[in-house]
Amino acid sequence: MNALLLVAHGSRKRVSNDEIRDLTRRLAQDATHGFDQVECAFLEFTEPSITEGISICSRKGATHITVLPYFLSSGHHVTVDIPAELENVKKNNPQVQLQMAPYLGAAKEIGKILVSLSRRAT
Amino acid sequence: MNALLLVAHGSRKRVSNDEIRDLTRRLAQDATHGFDQVECAFLEFTEPSITEGISICSRKGATHITVLPYFLSSGHHVTVDIPAELENVKKNNPQVQLQMAPYLGAAKEIGKILVSLSRRAT
Repeated sequence: MNALLLVAHGSRKRVSNDEIRDLTRRLAQDATHGFDQVECAFLEFTEPSITEGISICSRKGATHITVLPYFLSSGHHVTVDIPAELENVKKNNPQVQLQMAPYLGAAKEIGKILVSLSRRAT
Repeated sequence: MNALLLVAHGSRKRVSNDEIRDLTRRLAQDATHGFDQVECAFLEFTEPSITEGISICSRKGATHITVLPYFLSSGHHVTVDIPAELENVKKNNPQVQLQMAPYLGAAKEIGKILVSLSRRAT
Protein backbone atom coordinates (compact mmCIF):
# COMPACT_ATOMS: atom_id res chain seq x y z
CA MET A 1 0.00 0.00 0.00
CA ASN A 2 1.22 3.47 -0.81
CA ALA A 3 0.49 6.84 0.73
CA LEU A 4 0.94 10.48 -0.20
CA LEU A 5 1.86 12.72 2.74
CA LEU A 6 1.48 16.46 2.15
CA VAL A 7 3.75 18.43 4.48
CA ALA A 8 2.69 22.03 5.06
CA HIS A 9 4.23 24.70 7.25
CA GLY A 10 1.29 24.99 9.61
CA SER A 11 -0.18 28.23 10.90
CA ARG A 12 -1.40 29.80 14.11
CA LYS A 13 -4.69 30.31 12.24
CA ARG A 14 -6.95 27.28 12.33
CA VAL A 15 -8.59 28.24 9.04
CA SER A 16 -5.25 28.00 7.22
CA ASN A 17 -4.54 24.54 8.64
CA ASP A 18 -8.08 23.50 7.77
CA GLU A 19 -7.45 24.47 4.14
CA ILE A 20 -4.66 21.86 4.03
CA ARG A 21 -6.87 19.27 5.72
CA ASP A 22 -9.70 19.96 3.25
CA LEU A 23 -7.32 19.62 0.30
CA THR A 24 -6.02 16.36 1.79
CA ARG A 25 -9.57 15.02 2.15
CA ARG A 26 -10.44 15.99 -1.41
CA LEU A 27 -7.31 14.25 -2.70
CA ALA A 28 -8.04 11.19 -0.54
CA GLN A 29 -11.48 10.91 -2.14
CA ASP A 30 -10.05 11.03 -5.65
CA ALA A 31 -9.58 7.44 -6.76
CA THR A 32 -7.66 8.27 -9.94
CA HIS A 33 -4.21 9.11 -8.57
CA GLY A 34 -3.28 5.61 -7.43
CA PHE A 35 -2.48 6.40 -3.79
CA ASP A 36 -4.23 4.19 -1.24
CA GLN A 37 -4.06 6.97 1.35
CA VAL A 38 -3.51 10.73 1.39
CA GLU A 39 -2.55 12.34 4.69
CA CYS A 40 -1.14 15.68 5.82
CA ALA A 41 1.47 16.75 8.35
CA PHE A 42 2.77 20.10 9.58
CA LEU A 43 6.15 21.55 10.57
CA GLU A 44 4.85 24.01 13.15
CA PHE A 45 1.84 25.25 15.12
CA THR A 46 -0.38 22.20 14.64
CA GLU A 47 -0.41 18.43 14.39
CA PRO A 48 0.41 15.86 13.22
CA SER A 49 4.18 16.38 12.80
CA ILE A 50 5.95 14.69 9.88
CA THR A 51 7.01 11.80 12.15
CA GLU A 52 3.44 11.40 13.42
CA GLY A 53 2.06 11.69 9.87
CA ILE A 54 4.32 8.88 8.71
CA SER A 55 3.23 6.77 11.70
CA ILE A 56 -0.42 7.37 10.75
CA CYS A 57 0.25 6.24 7.15
CA SER A 58 2.20 3.23 8.39
CA ARG A 59 -0.46 2.20 10.92
CA LYS A 60 -3.05 2.31 8.14
CA GLY A 61 -0.89 -0.13 6.18
CA ALA A 62 1.34 2.03 3.97
CA THR A 63 4.70 0.49 3.13
CA HIS A 64 5.66 3.16 0.61
CA ILE A 65 5.18 6.83 1.46
CA THR A 66 5.70 9.81 -0.85
CA VAL A 67 6.31 13.02 1.08
CA LEU A 68 5.41 16.22 -0.78
CA PRO A 69 6.37 19.63 0.66
CA TYR A 70 3.36 21.95 0.29
CA PHE A 71 5.57 25.02 0.02
CA LEU A 72 5.97 27.68 -2.66
CA SER A 73 9.70 28.25 -2.27
CA SER A 74 12.74 26.08 -1.74
CA GLY A 75 13.74 27.65 1.54
CA HIS A 76 15.29 26.09 4.63
CA HIS A 77 12.16 24.08 5.47
CA VAL A 78 12.17 22.32 2.10
CA THR A 79 15.91 21.86 1.70
CA VAL A 80 16.96 21.13 5.30
CA ASP A 81 14.18 20.66 7.88
CA ILE A 82 11.95 18.20 6.02
CA PRO A 83 14.82 16.02 4.66
CA ALA A 84 16.40 15.93 8.15
CA GLU A 85 13.16 14.75 9.76
CA LEU A 86 12.73 12.14 7.01
CA GLU A 87 16.25 10.80 7.64
CA ASN A 88 15.37 10.42 11.29
CA VAL A 89 12.15 8.59 10.49
CA LYS A 90 13.99 6.28 8.07
CA LYS A 91 16.41 5.24 10.82
CA ASN A 92 13.59 4.36 13.18
CA ASN A 93 11.28 2.79 10.59
CA PRO A 94 13.46 0.82 8.18
CA GLN A 95 10.42 -1.17 7.02
CA VAL A 96 8.83 1.93 5.44
CA GLN A 97 10.03 3.13 2.06
CA LEU A 98 10.13 6.93 1.95
CA GLN A 99 10.43 9.14 -1.10
CA MET A 100 10.37 12.92 -1.39
CA ALA A 101 8.55 14.66 -4.22
CA PRO A 102 9.49 18.14 -5.47
CA TYR A 103 7.89 21.00 -3.51
CA LEU A 104 4.74 22.59 -4.92
CA GLY A 105 6.46 25.80 -6.09
CA ALA A 106 8.69 23.73 -8.39
CA ALA A 107 5.74 22.73 -10.58
CA LYS A 108 5.91 24.18 -14.08
CA GLU A 109 2.09 24.12 -14.22
CA ILE A 110 1.79 26.97 -11.70
CA GLY A 111 2.02 29.59 -14.45
CA LYS A 112 -1.07 28.16 -16.11
CA ILE A 113 -2.97 28.19 -12.82
CA LEU A 114 -2.07 31.84 -12.25
CA VAL A 115 -3.43 32.76 -15.67
CA SER A 116 -6.58 30.77 -14.99
CA LEU A 117 -7.04 32.51 -11.60
CA SER A 118 -6.44 35.92 -13.16
CA ARG A 119 -9.55 35.37 -15.28
CA ARG A 120 -11.60 35.10 -12.08
CA ALA A 121 -10.51 38.54 -10.81
CA THR A 122 -13.17 40.89 -9.54
CA MET B 1 -2.90 47.91 -21.72
CA ASN B 2 -3.34 45.38 -18.98
CA ALA B 3 -0.94 43.94 -16.44
CA LEU B 4 -0.80 40.99 -14.07
CA LEU B 5 0.86 41.75 -10.73
CA LEU B 6 1.85 38.72 -8.65
CA VAL B 7 2.06 39.62 -4.96
CA ALA B 8 4.23 37.29 -2.88
CA HIS B 9 5.11 37.43 0.81
CA GLY B 10 8.80 38.01 0.27
CA SER B 11 11.59 36.30 2.18
CA ARG B 12 14.85 37.10 3.93
CA LYS B 13 16.38 34.55 1.53
CA ARG B 14 17.28 36.01 -1.83
CA VAL B 15 16.87 32.66 -3.56
CA SER B 16 13.19 32.52 -2.53
CA ASN B 17 12.52 36.01 -3.88
CA ASP B 18 14.40 35.12 -7.06
CA GLU B 19 12.05 32.16 -7.58
CA ILE B 20 9.14 34.63 -7.77
CA ARG B 21 11.09 36.91 -10.11
CA ASP B 22 11.95 33.95 -12.37
CA LEU B 23 8.32 32.83 -12.46
CA THR B 24 7.30 36.43 -13.29
CA ARG B 25 9.82 36.57 -16.14
CA ARG B 26 8.66 33.23 -17.53
CA LEU B 27 5.04 34.41 -17.43
CA ALA B 28 5.99 37.75 -19.03
CA GLN B 29 7.58 35.86 -21.94
CA ASP B 30 4.45 33.80 -22.53
CA ALA B 31 2.44 35.59 -25.18
CA THR B 32 -0.64 33.40 -24.87
CA HIS B 33 -2.22 34.74 -21.65
CA GLY B 34 -3.21 38.13 -23.01
CA PHE B 35 -1.45 40.33 -20.42
CA ASP B 36 0.74 43.05 -21.88
CA GLN B 37 2.92 42.99 -18.75
CA VAL B 38 3.58 40.65 -15.84
CA GLU B 39 5.26 42.10 -12.75
CA CYS B 40 5.78 41.00 -9.15
CA ALA B 41 5.61 42.75 -5.80
CA PHE B 42 6.29 41.72 -2.19
CA LEU B 43 4.72 42.37 1.19
CA GLU B 44 7.92 42.11 3.23
CA PHE B 45 11.71 41.77 3.16
CA THR B 46 12.26 42.87 -0.44
CA GLU B 47 11.06 45.23 -3.15
CA PRO B 48 9.02 46.38 -4.94
CA SER B 49 6.08 46.82 -2.55
CA ILE B 50 2.55 46.47 -3.91
CA THR B 51 2.27 50.25 -4.28
CA GLU B 52 5.61 50.37 -6.10
CA GLY B 53 4.63 47.36 -8.25
CA ILE B 54 1.46 49.11 -9.34
CA SER B 55 3.45 52.26 -10.14
CA ILE B 56 5.82 50.17 -12.29
CA CYS B 57 2.88 48.68 -14.20
CA SER B 58 1.28 52.10 -14.58
CA ARG B 59 4.51 53.77 -15.79
CA LYS B 60 4.85 51.06 -18.43
CA GLY B 61 1.39 51.98 -19.67
CA ALA B 62 -1.01 49.64 -17.82
CA THR B 63 -4.48 51.06 -17.27
CA HIS B 64 -5.96 47.81 -15.96
CA ILE B 65 -4.04 45.77 -13.37
CA THR B 66 -4.98 42.35 -12.01
CA VAL B 67 -3.39 41.67 -8.62
CA LEU B 68 -2.93 37.99 -7.76
CA PRO B 69 -1.82 36.95 -4.24
CA TYR B 70 0.87 34.27 -4.59
CA PHE B 71 -0.10 32.65 -1.29
CA LEU B 72 -1.23 29.15 -0.39
CA SER B 73 -3.65 30.08 2.35
CA SER B 74 -6.25 32.75 2.89
CA GLY B 75 -4.62 34.24 5.96
CA HIS B 76 -4.42 37.84 7.13
CA HIS B 77 -2.13 38.89 4.28
CA VAL B 78 -4.61 37.76 1.63
CA THR B 79 -7.81 38.85 3.35
CA VAL B 80 -6.68 42.10 5.02
CA ASP B 81 -3.19 43.40 4.16
CA ILE B 82 -3.30 43.15 0.37
CA PRO B 83 -6.88 44.50 -0.01
CA ALA B 84 -6.04 47.39 2.35
CA GLU B 85 -2.97 48.37 0.32
CA LEU B 86 -5.00 48.14 -2.89
CA GLU B 87 -7.68 50.44 -1.46
CA ASN B 88 -4.97 52.96 -0.68
CA VAL B 89 -3.51 52.72 -4.18
CA LYS B 90 -6.98 53.16 -5.71
CA LYS B 91 -7.50 56.40 -3.81
CA ASN B 92 -4.20 57.82 -5.05
CA ASN B 93 -4.44 56.46 -8.61
CA PRO B 94 -8.05 56.76 -9.71
CA GLN B 95 -6.99 56.45 -13.36
CA VAL B 96 -5.83 52.83 -12.85
CA GLN B 97 -8.41 50.04 -12.79
CA LEU B 98 -7.47 47.45 -10.16
CA GLN B 99 -8.89 43.95 -9.80
CA MET B 100 -7.95 41.21 -7.36
CA ALA B 101 -7.76 37.58 -8.47
CA PRO B 102 -8.23 34.64 -6.07
CA TYR B 103 -5.06 33.62 -4.20
CA LEU B 104 -3.06 30.68 -5.58
CA GLY B 105 -4.15 28.19 -2.88
CA ALA B 106 -7.78 28.66 -3.96
CA ALA B 107 -7.13 27.02 -7.32
CA LYS B 108 -8.90 23.70 -7.74
CA GLU B 109 -6.11 22.55 -10.09
CA ILE B 110 -3.58 22.27 -7.24
CA GLY B 111 -4.64 18.70 -6.49
CA LYS B 112 -3.68 17.64 -10.01
CA ILE B 113 -0.30 19.36 -9.69
CA LEU B 114 0.39 17.52 -6.42
CA VAL B 115 -0.34 14.19 -8.07
CA SER B 116 1.89 15.11 -10.99
CA LEU B 117 4.73 16.13 -8.61
CA SER B 118 4.31 12.92 -6.60
CA ARG B 119 5.28 10.98 -9.73
CA ARG B 120 8.63 12.77 -9.75
CA ALA B 121 9.51 11.64 -6.19
CA THR B 122 12.96 10.17 -5.62
